[in-house]
Amino acid sequence: MEWKQQLKGYTALINAYLEEQLKEAEGLNKTVVEAMRYSLMAGGKRLRPVLMLAAYKLFSEDLNKVLPYAAAIEMIHTYSLIHDDLPAMDNDDYRRGKPTNHKVFGEGIAILAGDGLLNYSYELMLRDAVEKENPRPYLRASYELAAASGINGMIGGQTVDLESESKLISADTLHYIHTKKTAAIISASLKAGAIIGGGTDTDIDRMENIGTSLGLAFQIQDDILDIVGDQEKLGKNIGSDEENQKSTYPAIFGLEHSYKKVRELTEEINKSLAAYGERGAFLVELSRYLMEREA
Amino acid sequence: MEWKQQLKGYTALINAYLEEQLKEAEGLNKTVVEAMRYSLMAGGKRLRPVLMLAAYKLFSEDLNKVLPYAAAIEMIHTYSLIHDDLPAMDNDDYRRGKPTNHKVFGEGIAILAGDGLLNYSYELMLRDAVEKENPRPYLRASYELAAASGINGMIGGQTVDLESESKLISADTLHYIHTKKTAAIISASLKAGAIIGGGTDTDIDRMENIGTSLGLAFQIQDDILDIVGDQEKLGKNIGSDEENQKSTYPAIFGLEHSYKKVRELTEEINKSLAAYGERGAFLVELSRYLMEREA
Repeated sequence: MEWKQQLKGYTALINAYLEEQLKEAEGLNKTVVEAMRYSLMAGGKRLRPVLMLAAYKLFSEDLNKVLPYAAAIEMIHTYSLIHDDLPAMDNDDYRRGKPTNHKVFGEGIAILAGDGLLNYSYELMLRDAVEKENPRPYLRASYELAAASGINGMIGGQTVDLESESKLISADTLHYIHTKKTAAIISASLKAGAIIGGGTDTDIDRMENIGTSLGLAFQIQDDILDIVGDQEKLGKNIGSDEENQKSTYPAIFGLEHSYKKVRELTEEINKSLAAYGERGAFLVELSRYLMEREA
Repeated sequence: MEWKQQLKGYTALINAYLEEQLKEAEGLNKTVVEAMRYSLMAGGKRLRPVLMLAAYKLFSEDLNKVLPYAAAIEMIHTYSLIHDDLPAMDNDDYRRGKPTNHKVFGEGIAILAGDGLLNYSYELMLRDAVEKENPRPYLRASYELAAASGINGMIGGQTVDLESESKLISADTLHYIHTKKTAAIISASLKAGAIIGGGTDTDIDRMENIGTSLGLAFQIQDDILDIVGDQEKLGKNIGSDEENQKSTYPAIFGLEHSYKKVRELTEEINKSLAAYGERGAFLVELSRYLMEREA
């Protein structure tokens, strides 16, 4: 299981870097940094930054160059969870087995902690890029991450998701939500890794496509686990989608077809990764693992 | 009143550019863009972008170069107002004479509209900077705006402000709130204008200092107007600070001393601007006007 060692190494690297950035952030504003740390260090899988590091590694060696961008996308992901959990949105009390941010710090501070993480992600990237002799690839990667996180990416998906609650939605709308809300930043993470690592345009496009498939597979698997998963392993209540009357892939297409779709997408990903031979092994293993995960 | 014509020209330019960016943003996510437009085009004074344009004009001519950054800071300012008005924060029903964002669109969409504006501001700046032959000054300006908006700037100030409600606070804490919550992005706007315009380091530092004084004067004047202002001219209820038991400059130091402080700060600003002779006239007039404003 060499790839699991590699995953542990990546995760440790990301966690240490995130902790460093939080330390640097502490000022008179202890409360907001404490609330940011609470959610940022709550034991997330670090999927998006790990994907960025892995994509970078296909083309380059020195991971320090990509870490600020990997940390930034994890901050963006975390802010979106904090805001998503708020009473006015999904109204969730637990996340990763712990009370959600607003349950601990109150809604006002939770809103500010989310804003703080989002803004800090750009502060980090800009602070890094401004020091580069050739800032262009770093700028391009930052732009891709910004576009994927914004109103035509994740925030757009969250909006349609929020509007779709308690409604019957079409397969097209569901596809829009999944592509924008989840797949966009997963895809941009891989893309940013390839851009900073120095991949060709073909590589960058390939990473984008792999990311879209991976993001969809990941979201469908999430929706499957909300039906058949183990509450304890997941660290959150199952059945919440049905309770919130959320249209999900299994709700529209059935469980059987959902399993099949995840398998198909994973095969597509593996085929694309074949272009990188041995170097692509980590990403192949990781996507297989994500497909089979129970939490 | 030549300067007022110039102010109108700047404002018109900024409004047209903001409208263009909103048009470009429309996708399947109509709701979030509509909510963003509602607050962004609600008739704000455009103080921050006007200051950026005016600072830029001290050193360069072609305003197109600075517009994306001016638009970005107005988006950041507007997002902070939307989130600040939420029930979990200041719980305001009216802003600029209109119902606040969450009163019209609901809290969930208001949170997303704020997130959308914040993220879009960075998308705009990065999209612009990535196209430049020499992106460094644009990057540097973006970083200054990000730092001033973040946890050691505006968000830090908002946090301490939120924590200070219904409490007696020290003059030091009040100074922290004013400097961070208001003055930081006003100062960064002037600074960014000077950086993009090609000012020297002395110019850039001078703009930063002028911005800090201007921001403090502006905030104290705001607090004065909340006591002695005309509700109709202001477009919002007066007395809200006292109602929310907010410590303000007049509450701690008295009205008389507050007027005096605003005058002193304005004099400081005018002295610094003397370095630019005739070219500085617009900023001199504008800061005088801000000191005497009734809304």
